[in-house]
Amino acid sequence: MTTTYRLNDVDIESVAALTAACREDVAKAGTTWRAEVDWTGGFRTQSRIRDFQQVSDEPPALGGTDTGPNPVEQLLAALGNCLAVGVAANATARGIAIDRLGIAVEGDLDLSTFLGITPGHAGFDSIRVEVEIECDADAETVQDLIQDVGDTSPVGHTLSRPIPLSITAV
Amino acid sequence: MTTTYRLNDVDIESVAALTAACREDVAKAGTTWRAEVDWTGGFRTQSRIRDFQQVSDEPPALGGTDTGPNPVEQLLAALGNCLAVGVAANATARGIAIDRLGIAVEGDLDLSTFLGITPGHAGFDSIRVEVEIECDADAETVQDLIQDVGDTSPVGHTLSRPIPLSITAV
Repeated sequence: MTTTYRLNDVDIESVAALTAACREDVAKAGTTWRAEVDWTGGFRTQSRIRDFQQVSDEPPALGGTDTGPNPVEQLLAALGNCLAVGVAANATARGIAIDRLGIAVEGDLDLSTFLGITPGHAGFDSIRVEVEIECDADAETVQDLIQDVGDTSPVGHTLSRPIPLSITAV
Repeated sequence: MTTTYRLNDVDIESVAALTAACREDVAKAGTTWRAEVDWTGGFRTQSRIRDFQQVSDEPPALGGTDTGPNPVEQLLAALGNCLAVGVAANATARGIAIDRLGIAVEGDLDLSTFLGITPGHAGFDSIRVEVEIECDADAETVQDLIQDVGDTSPVGHTLSRPIPLSITAV
């Protein structure tokens, strides 16, 4: 048995191989992702992503039965998860060992539009992220790292830029 | 024991009560939502949303260990879940009984920016949603319903509009 030590337990070789393949053939960087959602009554749904299933619901104040996180909370978690992947990947590429990484995400949302009181913006007004990292790098290096992560975050960019959305009844 | 029949099992009274309260006092429509993410090694994280925990990971091709859906997939699921809540709420308010509701969400994403090959847009280029609904309303009513759901969707608007995002190391 061979045991290989991996910095941050990140499989940086796979990321490097994918990066090399995409550099050679740009078409390989083009990906399509999918999720399917089945309504299960009330405000409850079950999402299916490949082999993974998750339950979504609303809290009672919003008419739900509180059996899972709600969609806007899931969106905040998706952002935190994406930034964590970015931190892990970028830190590992720079040889930085992470001891601990916690990310808190918070967003303000005016329910008036969702509730049909006033037309306008139904989404988050702003989203704030705090990244708490313990690692073997100095504060300046960490700042650079976080900047690079924000500049290359798939979920971060999807939120901070307008994305064309088509909704069709089939 | 009193059994009350609820159309679509939606607690429309709670939604109506919240709407009335927000009409009376606009400050009540102002909400803040939170998610916390703990990195657990590699590209794995555990998110905490109130009492709910979920695992996030990447597929092996992206350097992950495939123990959960990845962040961009979670974002698509959040959109589908949000639209399902919107359909359930709006259909119930109109007295439409839903027999079945399935939502498929798909998005294209160029990995070049995330992988550091080219600066630019790391997020989804576009997102497509197909809503499949069986209900006791005609096609025109369903089209109107879907239109209204898209016009009032918190996650939909967060994606289709640019949201200010601040990322801070603390």
